[in-house]
Amino acid sequence: MSARLPFAIHATDGPARTGTLTTPRGRIRTPAFMPVGTAGTVKAMLPEQVKASGADILLGNTYHLMLRPGAERIARLGGLHAFMRWEGPILTDSGGYQVMSLAKLRRITEEGVSFRSHIDGAEVALTPERSIEVQRLLGSTIVMVLDECTPFPATHEEARRSMELSLRWAARSKAAFGAPEDAFLFGIVQGSTYADLRAASAAGLLSIGFDGYAVGGLAVGEGQAAMLDTLEVTVPHLPADRPRYLMGVGKPSDIVGAVRRGIDMFDCVIPTRSGRNGQAFTWRGPVNLRNARHAEDPRPLDAASDCPASALYSRAYLHHLVKAGEILASVLLTWHNLSFYQALMARIRASIAQGRLADLEAELLAGEAGGDIPPL
Amino acid sequence: MSARLPFAIHATDGPARTGTLTTPRGRIRTPAFMPVGTAGTVKAMLPEQVKASGADILLGNTYHLMLRPGAERIARLGGLHAFMRWEGPILTDSGGYQVMSLAKLRRITEEGVSFRSHIDGAEVALTPERSIEVQRLLGSTIVMVLDECTPFPATHEEARRSMELSLRWAARSKAAFGAPEDAFLFGIVQGSTYADLRAASAAGLLSIGFDGYAVGGLAVGEGQAAMLDTLEVTVPHLPADRPRYLMGVGKPSDIVGAVRRGIDMFDCVIPTRSGRNGQAFTWRGPVNLRNARHAEDPRPLDAASDCPASALYSRAYLHHLVKAGEILASVLLTWHNLSFYQALMARIRASIAQGRLADLEAELLAGEAGGDIPPL
Repeated sequence: MSARLPFAIHATDGPARTGTLTTPRGRIRTPAFMPVGTAGTVKAMLPEQVKASGADILLGNTYHLMLRPGAERIARLGGLHAFMRWEGPILTDSGGYQVMSLAKLRRITEEGVSFRSHIDGAEVALTPERSIEVQRLLGSTIVMVLDECTPFPATHEEARRSMELSLRWAARSKAAFGAPEDAFLFGIVQGSTYADLRAASAAGLLSIGFDGYAVGGLAVGEGQAAMLDTLEVTVPHLPADRPRYLMGVGKPSDIVGAVRRGIDMFDCVIPTRSGRNGQAFTWRGPVNLRNARHAEDPRPLDAASDCPASALYSRAYLHHLVKAGEILASVLLTWHNLSFYQALMARIRASIAQGRLADLEAELLAGEAGGDIPPL
Repeated sequence: MSARLPFAIHATDGPARTGTLTTPRGRIRTPAFMPVGTAGTVKAMLPEQVKASGADILLGNTYHLMLRPGAERIARLGGLHAFMRWEGPILTDSGGYQVMSLAKLRRITEEGVSFRSHIDGAEVALTPERSIEVQRLLGSTIVMVLDECTPFPATHEEARRSMELSLRWAARSKAAFGAPEDAFLFGIVQGSTYADLRAASAAGLLSIGFDGYAVGGLAVGEGQAAMLDTLEVTVPHLPADRPRYLMGVGKPSDIVGAVRRGIDMFDCVIPTRSGRNGQAFTWRGPVNLRNARHAEDPRPLDAASDCPASALYSRAYLHHLVKAGEILASVLLTWHNLSFYQALMARIRASIAQGRLADLEAELLAGEAGGDIPPL
């Protein structure tokens, strides 16, 4: 089967590209940032607010949703789109990453992974076939193969064994997926920070054939430089006409750095989690609204923004809400951060079209250095 | 000084009245329900959502705001309306009730009350004059006199001494208030459940003269029957042409029962606090969304409502959000409950105009008896 997900590339700037993915649920402008809707909600947001922020596509977490409320239940209720009132495309991960980071008593075999739920301790098995089944029950638009997220650091031998297991799981995922008309399947390149393993993983996935290719196993503690180095030795092995997705990344300079190396799609909890922790992104770097210096600052976070949370509330008010532990602090700062991230992606797309992406990267790095909180 | 707050009564149904209060900040349709915006936010709500629910006026808590972020700070930032982005009228309480319920090491003297902040332990003094000053710094539209909220139960002698202290504080509050053009002052009737003390309190307040009259010291454990009995012996002593406000009440049947006895204004944390606890009001009684019977119920809370939270999300989804502890559960259920309360007030106003308020009361009592959670 050849790839079926239409991907039109409109402009390039070195390895960076800007384009459009076309799905039955709507178009995705790339480079794209996908807000994370872990448990059937982008935390603290109404779906209308996520849409208004400029997001074309959400990410849902298979692990969380299969445990609560359950994939079969969501299917009986009409699928994840109807359940959470998001009509646009949804990408679901395979559940593998959260099994490693959240579940208890994990046991990995050739067949798959078994674990105990972090919610109620129930014993659960996740195989490549079951992950695909769950994602299809959810009604996901872009489905991810089950992989093993290789721990970091790993020896070359550990990383090779893990990558090869993920390749065999990728082939089983592809077989289980079939060729539905309303969904698309992405493979995931593993291999830790080893260039030869990344190349072998990419070659193995290409021989199976996927609608898109993700880079997994990064943003796990290796640092920005090693992450970008790994992209430089991985992306050239991926087909130019297929979308490339860097999983779980990142802060603004991570994203622009990865785009400069050919990445088209991103997801990350940073804007939402930071918002709930009182941190806001600005073009002059991140700020911590808990800091007393905001207590009488009448300025909004970004007077030029279309987002009400960014333009209409004073920093003094946001400071007060954060200090008082008010839910509205989480709502407003999440909304602002999601809008900032989408504004960032819009500037990245425009910069690629103008051939000036390097200028934007320099501005973002200066901003992160000048913020009032440590780099995220 | 005669009363200056315009109050037009459009229709009556026995002692119940429906009318309009006209303030420089906008009109208030009565009977009115004021959502509680304790710390400069109606918890979990954007001001636009509160407005869309149908609320004409909010309540702010002087005690909370004077402690954090401070009345002088809010004044420097342009007042509470600008601070929290609510353009309509705001009523602020005097702080006395929260001093009794939240503060530590309270000491009441003829001069006022001193206490330690529940936030940081700081020693704070609140006198009638300081309460008026704080409320004026906040920019309140309707200002309440400082009173002592008489504990329940109280002996006749305790209730008399407390009521007389509140009367002396009311006179000092009136003197401190003066006659500003943009704000109005309400007195508060005390006297526990003793008819003679309520009558004496009302007479004392009338001789001072206020723009409106509140009934305080109820909803403190006396029960619905005693509360309504107390209103029956209190309201006849209040002038018919002035608005009457029952403080801190209540559940739907409390409100309609009080309206039938001549009350025009209400505030209560029940719709907001219940929403954060997973409880929703419906015309068939309150429901607890945590209950497993909602887990696969595709129906919204109220398909006929204009409120998106009421009409567009399934009970199954709300159940999931409550179980998962998601912020969106608090947002949607608070929004729904505030919309329900405003729909209730609209039905009360229409029922008075039609002379059918007793029918609505019977319906609400049947609904509360049929809900799936104990009476609130």
